[in-house]
Amino acid sequence: MTGQSTVQTLKGFRDFLPEQKRVRDWVKNTITKAFQIHGFEPIETPTLEYAELLLGKYGSEADKMVYTFEDRGKRKVGMRYDQTMPTARVLAQYSHTLPKYFRRYQIQNVFRAENTQKGRYREFTQCDCDLFGSTSPLADAEILSVFYATYKALGLDITIRINDRTSLFEAIKPFETADVSVFSIIQSIDKLDKLSQDDVMKELEEKGLEIENTTAVVNTVNRIPLSKNCQEIMGYAMDLGVPEEALEFVPSLARGLDYYTGLIFEGVIPEISGGSVGGGGRYDNLIKQLGGPELSAAGFAIGFDRTIEALEELNLLPSFESTARVLVTVFNPECIEASTGIARDLRAQGIATELYPHTKDALGKQIKYANDKKVPYVIVIGPDEVKKEIITLKNMRTGEETKGTIQEGITVIQTPTLHRERDSQS
Amino acid sequence: MTGQSTVQTLKGFRDFLPEQKRVRDWVKNTITKAFQIHGFEPIETPTLEYAELLLGKYGSEADKMVYTFEDRGKRKVGMRYDQTMPTARVLAQYSHTLPKYFRRYQIQNVFRAENTQKGRYREFTQCDCDLFGSTSPLADAEILSVFYATYKALGLDITIRINDRTSLFEAIKPFETADVSVFSIIQSIDKLDKLSQDDVMKELEEKGLEIENTTAVVNTVNRIPLSKNCQEIMGYAMDLGVPEEALEFVPSLARGLDYYTGLIFEGVIPEISGGSVGGGGRYDNLIKQLGGPELSAAGFAIGFDRTIEALEELNLLPSFESTARVLVTVFNPECIEASTGIARDLRAQGIATELYPHTKDALGKQIKYANDKKVPYVIVIGPDEVKKEIITLKNMRTGEETKGTIQEGITVIQTPTLHRERDSQS
Repeated sequence: MTGQSTVQTLKGFRDFLPEQKRVRDWVKNTITKAFQIHGFEPIETPTLEYAELLLGKYGSEADKMVYTFEDRGKRKVGMRYDQTMPTARVLAQYSHTLPKYFRRYQIQNVFRAENTQKGRYREFTQCDCDLFGSTSPLADAEILSVFYATYKALGLDITIRINDRTSLFEAIKPFETADVSVFSIIQSIDKLDKLSQDDVMKELEEKGLEIENTTAVVNTVNRIPLSKNCQEIMGYAMDLGVPEEALEFVPSLARGLDYYTGLIFEGVIPEISGGSVGGGGRYDNLIKQLGGPELSAAGFAIGFDRTIEALEELNLLPSFESTARVLVTVFNPECIEASTGIARDLRAQGIATELYPHTKDALGKQIKYANDKKVPYVIVIGPDEVKKEIITLKNMRTGEETKGTIQEGITVIQTPTLHRERDSQS
Repeated sequence: MTGQSTVQTLKGFRDFLPEQKRVRDWVKNTITKAFQIHGFEPIETPTLEYAELLLGKYGSEADKMVYTFEDRGKRKVGMRYDQTMPTARVLAQYSHTLPKYFRRYQIQNVFRAENTQKGRYREFTQCDCDLFGSTSPLADAEILSVFYATYKALGLDITIRINDRTSLFEAIKPFETADVSVFSIIQSIDKLDKLSQDDVMKELEEKGLEIENTTAVVNTVNRIPLSKNCQEIMGYAMDLGVPEEALEFVPSLARGLDYYTGLIFEGVIPEISGGSVGGGGRYDNLIKQLGGPELSAAGFAIGFDRTIEALEELNLLPSFESTARVLVTVFNPECIEASTGIARDLRAQGIATELYPHTKDALGKQIKYANDKKVPYVIVIGPDEVKKEIITLKNMRTGEETKGTIQEGITVIQTPTLHRERDSQS
């Protein structure tokens, strides 16, 4: 046995035990289903890529966060940093076999050699959904529609904050100076929803903008009208089922990343604080910059951990008591065959069933085991039940015990008893 | 744009485009569901662990295959090599919160710095299913039962070849010499189903066994009776639903790995050659050897790639034409609203729907697009359809076109048309 020191996970990495893993699987499956209903198709790329492919694309700050090493064949390799870069490679490598308008989703873990003191993880799940190949506002609307519907499927009513990066860029451009780039101004303007107007102006002044211009730029941004492009996209999005009240035009919204070229958006949940739960936009030049073909693109990423936190905060997660819906106990060695037969029958009906494996434990211990594991039902078959060809069914929530045929028991077990419980097995 | 050299995956690593990814997701979801029906619970562990935890556990040959490197914090880290080792850590780390009889499954990718010339992959999916904490034959039977049922759920009728490692060990022990260990003899004996009896005896002779003993050992092995333990396990497994004809006692079966302590088994598909599609057994000492607590265990791994190959070979995979079941075309700019409305209605019914995003393409081009993507249905709504409040539904397989209400169209689209097609969306 090795020293105690290694019986732990690395900082920034997490284990998910059944209770958490069931939640994560449910969220992932719900997201996947929403993506599929909108016609998006899954791809999967390797965890390791040539380091050359990963580095030098998002700037030196990003490069520092890529896990790279030399493999046994002396190749410089790196761990997946995001899913856009591998997708750019896929788009380049299989360009002739992919559909012209490629709707793809990708849900895998990515790796960042981040400073964990910020409360960030070094391995986390990304959920990307993008439509490649079309510059049409209808494509942007499809993206907004699947974005909204995905959170809706999870039980979340989000507000989508929307802006047009082009209008913002054009409005700010005249204020650019030799010292202060348009991107730097945009970065400050983006903080208008978090900081006060005065603080944003102060930041701009510190960056080197003249005082009168800091006022002017803020006033200009606040007066940018909704662009024709955004108007059209929002109209189509409503036709596709996004409620009008869920769409909010925010002329100062900038979304930090500077690769967006048109529509930008983020999802927020009005009831909770803490920023967006996901976001995206149009990025018509990025795929080429990342080494892919010249291909327009619009899409988004769902903040997987952030979304789960929001669901927890709003108490919207289904009940995930245990994977097994019923524990079949073993009364004594003579009754094993009756117990195994019942476990077989329950499973044949698709009911998640645990058979108590240890035949020597007393019945009380077996029931306590089910209670500790939060299994909702327990079946007891003793000599009396065997003789009468019945079972005793114990509802672990209410403590109620009923006797009846196996078929009657199955009907009770299959009836959902809690809000959303039906969804919990997937 | 970087050089062409990096627009490729590393040797031994794979991309999965939608066509393959859909298959893999279906197989994974089917396996998951079978595990859950048997009460097994999911866990997930990090891709990176302390290297110290991974190395020195399975011997120097295995150590050579672990991807290790130094991270930016100068920690020696390694990539997940298998799922048993991380599980041993989990069992040690959370021993007080886990159930006494812990049924866990884990389906994640593992990494091996393998020689790819053998046609092996360096990243591949493992599906592990194990029951920890019980030494009861009923626990072994549960394992055989979920093993059989999982392949059955995939449409595969496997034969489970079974043996008792203890009986085999005891029968061979007397033949051990200073030069030839009992494990070395077992390794040769294990080949009795692939090589001829003469070849196995020759190998044993070359290893240093005396000629008369090579005959004696083979004869002894062939005469080992079914152990009482195995008999009991097989009886329970049948009670749990494994057909008698699916269980085959093979006294020479050894399953290479030397950590098994009781039941050993592997699944083969009689119709196809190429060895087992999965296997496992009881390993009561391994968890402690790997740094975990003293805990008995029985379980198995499904050969994920091997199983998919078998399903392909037997033509048992469901039809996975495209994620979208229907493409809604856009006739002209005036008809966009009708198209978006129909896409919205179809999606509200849970029908995977793609809306053609590019409004400028001619209808013929849109239909060709659906055909290339193998989308089974296309909906056309031109001015005539808009006026009459109907749709034209085109069956892309038969070429047949029908006109009717949206609701009639939905009914047709929802009707499964191909063998197993219903299962294909999950």
